[in-house]
Amino acid sequence: MNDFEFYNPVKIFFGRDQILKIASQIPSSANIMLLYGGGSIFRNGVYDNVINALKNFKITEFGGIEPNPTYETSMKAVEIIKEKKIDYLLAAGGGSVVDATKFIAAAALYENGDPWKILSKSDPVTASIPFGVILTLPATGTEMNKNSVISRKSTVEKFAFSSPYSFPQFSVLTPEAAGTLPRNQVANGTVDAFVHVIEQYLTYPVNAPIQDRFAEAILITLIEEGPKAYANPADYDAMANLMWSATMALNGLIMCGVPGDWSVHSIGHELTALHGIDHARTLAIVLPGLWKVLRVEKGKKLIQYGERVWNITEGTDEERIDAAISKTAEFFESLGIKTHLSDYGVKKDTIEKIVKRFEERKWLELGDRGLTTPEATRKALEYQL
Amino acid sequence: MNDFEFYNPVKIFFGRDQILKIASQIPSSANIMLLYGGGSIFRNGVYDNVINALKNFKITEFGGIEPNPTYETSMKAVEIIKEKKIDYLLAAGGGSVVDATKFIAAAALYENGDPWKILSKSDPVTASIPFGVILTLPATGTEMNKNSVISRKSTVEKFAFSSPYSFPQFSVLTPEAAGTLPRNQVANGTVDAFVHVIEQYLTYPVNAPIQDRFAEAILITLIEEGPKAYANPADYDAMANLMWSATMALNGLIMCGVPGDWSVHSIGHELTALHGIDHARTLAIVLPGLWKVLRVEKGKKLIQYGERVWNITEGTDEERIDAAISKTAEFFESLGIKTHLSDYGVKKDTIEKIVKRFEERKWLELGDRGLTTPEATRKALEYQL
Repeated sequence: MNDFEFYNPVKIFFGRDQILKIASQIPSSANIMLLYGGGSIFRNGVYDNVINALKNFKITEFGGIEPNPTYETSMKAVEIIKEKKIDYLLAAGGGSVVDATKFIAAAALYENGDPWKILSKSDPVTASIPFGVILTLPATGTEMNKNSVISRKSTVEKFAFSSPYSFPQFSVLTPEAAGTLPRNQVANGTVDAFVHVIEQYLTYPVNAPIQDRFAEAILITLIEEGPKAYANPADYDAMANLMWSATMALNGLIMCGVPGDWSVHSIGHELTALHGIDHARTLAIVLPGLWKVLRVEKGKKLIQYGERVWNITEGTDEERIDAAISKTAEFFESLGIKTHLSDYGVKKDTIEKIVKRFEERKWLELGDRGLTTPEATRKALEYQL
Repeated sequence: MNDFEFYNPVKIFFGRDQILKIASQIPSSANIMLLYGGGSIFRNGVYDNVINALKNFKITEFGGIEPNPTYETSMKAVEIIKEKKIDYLLAAGGGSVVDATKFIAAAALYENGDPWKILSKSDPVTASIPFGVILTLPATGTEMNKNSVISRKSTVEKFAFSSPYSFPQFSVLTPEAAGTLPRNQVANGTVDAFVHVIEQYLTYPVNAPIQDRFAEAILITLIEEGPKAYANPADYDAMANLMWSATMALNGLIMCGVPGDWSVHSIGHELTALHGIDHARTLAIVLPGLWKVLRVEKGKKLIQYGERVWNITEGTDEERIDAAISKTAEFFESLGIKTHLSDYGVKKDTIEKIVKRFEERKWLELGDRGLTTPEATRKALEYQL
């Protein structure tokens, strides 16, 4: 395996009745901002539990964080934080609320001009307001990592940043609250977690058997448990297993000592930026297309994946690779996640737009071994028209 | 799965040329004690690399920490620490050096009388000198957890303690240095890690598929890579995979949300205390015996283990359980680790002594569901005479 560093100090509280514990995790003098999204926390019990747990704290509420959270909304929160001298943030909701909170926490203490530079110029974060998380939606893994993705409406862009200052201090994972999710969000979360694992696993072999098997463990569990949670989000056991899978998918563990390939995400972010397609759905479109383009270069791992995850043990290498790609797309479709651009009304001109953007940004060799060139991106998307 | 909390802030540096990084992890004003064992660090390059990395620091050396580290030796270090006002510890070596360092770090700041009470009375640790680790031997997992096991010569006892103050701040894992280990230590390490996984996995099903598959991933990797590293410790890839497996085996991750059963360790510790048998070898003796006693109660997991880890897919349940137990003992024996008491010159009177100790301590229901009674302990050891 390759050399690596690993560090993840996020404290996890998992299961039933865990929200009460947050009072002991937040300084008693804290001036808290509670951040949330469209209001699901008022329906799933999380809001009441948080207010009950924090009855001795001063709390300012900031709601309305949108899916694919924006710079614009985030900066409104930053303004209130500065005005009210808020010194602790609590994100309650899904990955969008958490990602926005990470950016807001950093932007509020940013001293180098417009905080957009954290995203557009990768200007390093050097301080962050401490924050905790109550997670109600298994998907992005942001509850246990230092990454965040933010969109900007005015420029129709979507960028990620990562900083050791952006780890939550704690995350409460609540399968019960997730049990009230709409089914399409469960489907999105399952596919999002699945592709996170793939981006750290489906590259080329480096003799890292623990990492490979952990990745396969998460994939197999998502394939087993995702459909159960999709069929009935209130199935506590299935939701709990899905939730822990999604967290393990992107907490840094399975990327230890192995190459990564985040080009499915890079391409997908453009589809969200340009057409507002749900993040997970963009991944489900791009992944099969990119595998068709890179089937030779990624062949060894595609065959291993087919065998260990889908039990594809017969046929020529070519047939096994085909089967692995088909099984994956079928899995996404079985969760109601369409895998072609036409399913979303996206046409060829969008492909040209994305390729041009990558060329302009000099993103000429994305991903594993730089294989995702603008030309590979074009071909990948054309496969999925 | 069960509710759980998880927290592990240890920073890992894994691979080649990592020791140089420790200078940036230790406060520049630190007054360091470098702790080590029998002197292997002088032969495997670790000592030179540490001294080179820390050339701008004040260092006091404390060597001679023994396998199954003792209270007596630890207290000598504590005396020097107090005298020299040491404020940072660096453990370089295997699990024994790290365990001793954890106890020393706590004992030096203990204010409640004799620090032996941390072990004998489970008196909580409330402060600890900060410390880092250079690990040269894959085995115990102590490099990434908050546990420690210490023996006391004068009373022939061996106890464990655990404290959130006892996490290393960082651990450097050095497969290259481990490449110079004697083969019997590689065998011990493989078996130790294997049984650590078993103690968190081989209980009863609670619908926790990620945890089960992670545990199985580590077991399969140990079965594959352990013998390669045993055959040739200098095989870097095999040693690296063994090393990361041993760390993952006991860093708290696979115990999330599942029951545990540490009774093989409890019984094994007595065999070490009474006869000085290597820790891992005591586990290899006790485990098959205890499974023979609890084959019905642990049957579901034994069958799953047999199928997924050893590919035992045929026969009646009884036959599959027998095969799973046999395969395990054969694996230990293949690494030169004997699994019977007679192999170590231990006789029936020792069994009676252990059973009596457990009764005196009121350890009447150890392990998973309290199944390891004194009577079960007697039977388990009798199976292995």
